[in-house]
Amino acid sequence: GVEKKILVIPGDGIGQEVTAWGQKVLESIAANFHHTFTFEEGIMGHVAIEATGNPLPDETLEKAKRSDAILFGAIGHAKYDNDPTLKVRPEQGLLKIRKELGLYANLRPIKLFDELLEASSIKPEILRGADILFFRELTGDVYFGEKVRTADRNTASDLMIYHRYEVERIARKAYEAARTRRKKLCSVDKANVLEASRLWREVVQDVAKEYPDVETEHMFIDNAAMQLIKDPKRFDVVLTGNLFGDILTDEASQIAGSMGMLASASVGDSTGFYEPIHGSAHDIAGKGIANPLASILSAALLLDISFGLKTESQRVIKAVEATLRQGYRTMDIANKHTVNDFIMGTDAMGAKVLENLN
Amino acid sequence: GVEKKILVIPGDGIGQEVTAWGQKVLESIAANFHHTFTFEEGIMGHVAIEATGNPLPDETLEKAKRSDAILFGAIGHAKYDNDPTLKVRPEQGLLKIRKELGLYANLRPIKLFDELLEASSIKPEILRGADILFFRELTGDVYFGEKVRTADRNTASDLMIYHRYEVERIARKAYEAARTRRKKLCSVDKANVLEASRLWREVVQDVAKEYPDVETEHMFIDNAAMQLIKDPKRFDVVLTGNLFGDILTDEASQIAGSMGMLASASVGDSTGFYEPIHGSAHDIAGKGIANPLASILSAALLLDISFGLKTESQRVIKAVEATLRQGYRTMDIANKHTVNDFIMGTDAMGAKVLENLN
Ligand SMILES: CC(C)[C@H](C(=O)O)[C@@H](O)C(=O)O
Ligand SMILES: CC(C)[C@H](C(=O)O)[C@@H](O)C(=O)O
Repeated sequence: GVEKKILVIPGDGIGQEVTAWGQKVLESIAANFHHTFTFEEGIMGHVAIEATGNPLPDETLEKAKRSDAILFGAIGHAKYDNDPTLKVRPEQGLLKIRKELGLYANLRPIKLFDELLEASSIKPEILRGADILFFRELTGDVYFGEKVRTADRNTASDLMIYHRYEVERIARKAYEAARTRRKKLCSVDKANVLEASRLWREVVQDVAKEYPDVETEHMFIDNAAMQLIKDPKRFDVVLTGNLFGDILTDEASQIAGSMGMLASASVGDSTGFYEPIHGSAHDIAGKGIANPLASILSAALLLDISFGLKTESQRVIKAVEATLRQGYRTMDIANKHTVNDFIMGTDAMGAKVLENLN
Repeated sequence: GVEKKILVIPGDGIGQEVTAWGQKVLESIAANFHHTFTFEEGIMGHVAIEATGNPLPDETLEKAKRSDAILFGAIGHAKYDNDPTLKVRPEQGLLKIRKELGLYANLRPIKLFDELLEASSIKPEILRGADILFFRELTGDVYFGEKVRTADRNTASDLMIYHRYEVERIARKAYEAARTRRKKLCSVDKANVLEASRLWREVVQDVAKEYPDVETEHMFIDNAAMQLIKDPKRFDVVLTGNLFGDILTDEASQIAGSMGMLASASVGDSTGFYEPIHGSAHDIAGKGIANPLASILSAALLLDISFGLKTESQRVIKAVEATLRQGYRTMDIANKHTVNDFIMGTDAMGAKVLENLN
């Protein structure tokens, strides 16, 4: 068995409720496969601001750096959303840890479990067989460019900026992944308007030459946002920048039936960082109804990508599949048109997956 | 009857094929209602670059300024998309005319014709009753901020920038429209990350106070891209910036069954500018299969908004409805699952609408 240190950061909102289940699944895998996983806990986001005034306390960052992988929940709170003038904000914690750990590649696999074919607002015949792997650049773009607010507060700006090396390194990762899949890569930008996108397109065209076996397509973001719904099956690997990736992957959650099903892996120079893409969802936080499957599937990604434990990772995915096949559903993935589902809360659902793991 | 000067700019790709039908519809309305519409033609985009080296020749701009309204087709060409290093680009013509004419508000109504309920990739029960009016800011944002490419060509940037007055004026227009509709306004931004979005949100919160009868909601762009597909009926008026509006309205075309159905109006200080949102679509250009309905519906918007001719505008919309009810379809809106549609090309479809106008 392997020995690994895992940092768990539940964060804000439903992150507090679902991340426990990601951790329990990791504990169960460790027990079954004779691995030794040691867990530490860290704070980040609104809870960290409340406790220390800092959305990413140094202590959390230190723990992160000495861990082998990080399981994260979510970040954000209505208080800051309602008051755009607040200076210290939960999201700064998330952006800072992405930057400090060099997590430049955010992988978001979008795949529909057969059992959820009816849960989406999109027609089943459009969805069946869709299987997309997003590579979202995560430490550049307008997220990290200089922000300016004039003294009179009447003008505000953010710099959308990309450097060649930033595009190159994530493009290579995306092409490598495409090679192990259906060998199609779609790069999304807005090169007809933006200079940063024209650089993006030039660099991807250059990297593409190293991968002649992969078919490359370039698409404008507006068209991509449309095609994703019109014909999701046309996509295999999608490569895009930080902002466009943020938008497209949330939209793509409808392909997987619900945001509550989607896991992501952020990787780069060292420690990997695993999180659901759903966010803190303050409207349902504290009610015990959030879907724990995205956190559990994030744990599966962690086992696979950071620890190379493919059998263990597959075991988790199979347990999720089995749970869905048995008809268990959280609210977000329940099918309003059939009476065959057993609708349950976060903990009951998490417990069913644990049962199916053994 | 009224006397009006209309500038027609077919532009590139399928713009050349569909815009003729928007014009024919306007001619027919003029004849039936005893108005005098005088038409001029102008060039813009790739065709203008080929003819003059300039994507927006001064002559076209002059004609635009002395017209009462402009009917535009589309812009863009594969040549520029494949070579991001080209300096002179068709889109510059479109961006320049928007700026020069002060067309800061782009209205994009998204409404599904009952007859097309089955044409979309989204389930009919999700779509039925959806009716959204987008207000996309059109002369600011990262589209018009400073663009920089370093001398070594390895770094590129665009400035995402908003001024208070830019947000204020379009917010007021959107709130006024919301008052005549279901009195709900959703403002979309990324205020948890972007300073320009925080200004946007502050200003919308201020303007909202002048419209206490309208219910205001603020939503992050990633969430909005998801909600639009999950539950389009929750939206009434959507107010957003230039880049986010570009993305969301293309995505929203799936609510209307096809991009080929969507018209838009760009208004501001003076002359209104009317165009389909579909773009030049070079993959199908020259084949005679493009859907002319978006251009025809753009003509309907022109009659309503620029000329105040509501009866005439409604007459056009009714003719489109009648044509769809008779089962006539272009390829993009044909329903693959029924055999009741008569599939036809651009000209046959346009001719059917003309018949129904009389
Ligand atoms: C919370 C927010 C800063 C974050 C982002 O925009 O990156 C989130 O939406 C995500 O996608 O991880
Ligand atoms: C052609 C392009 C510059 C344009 C835009 O991005 O504004 C188009 O996509 C649109 O939406 O009108």
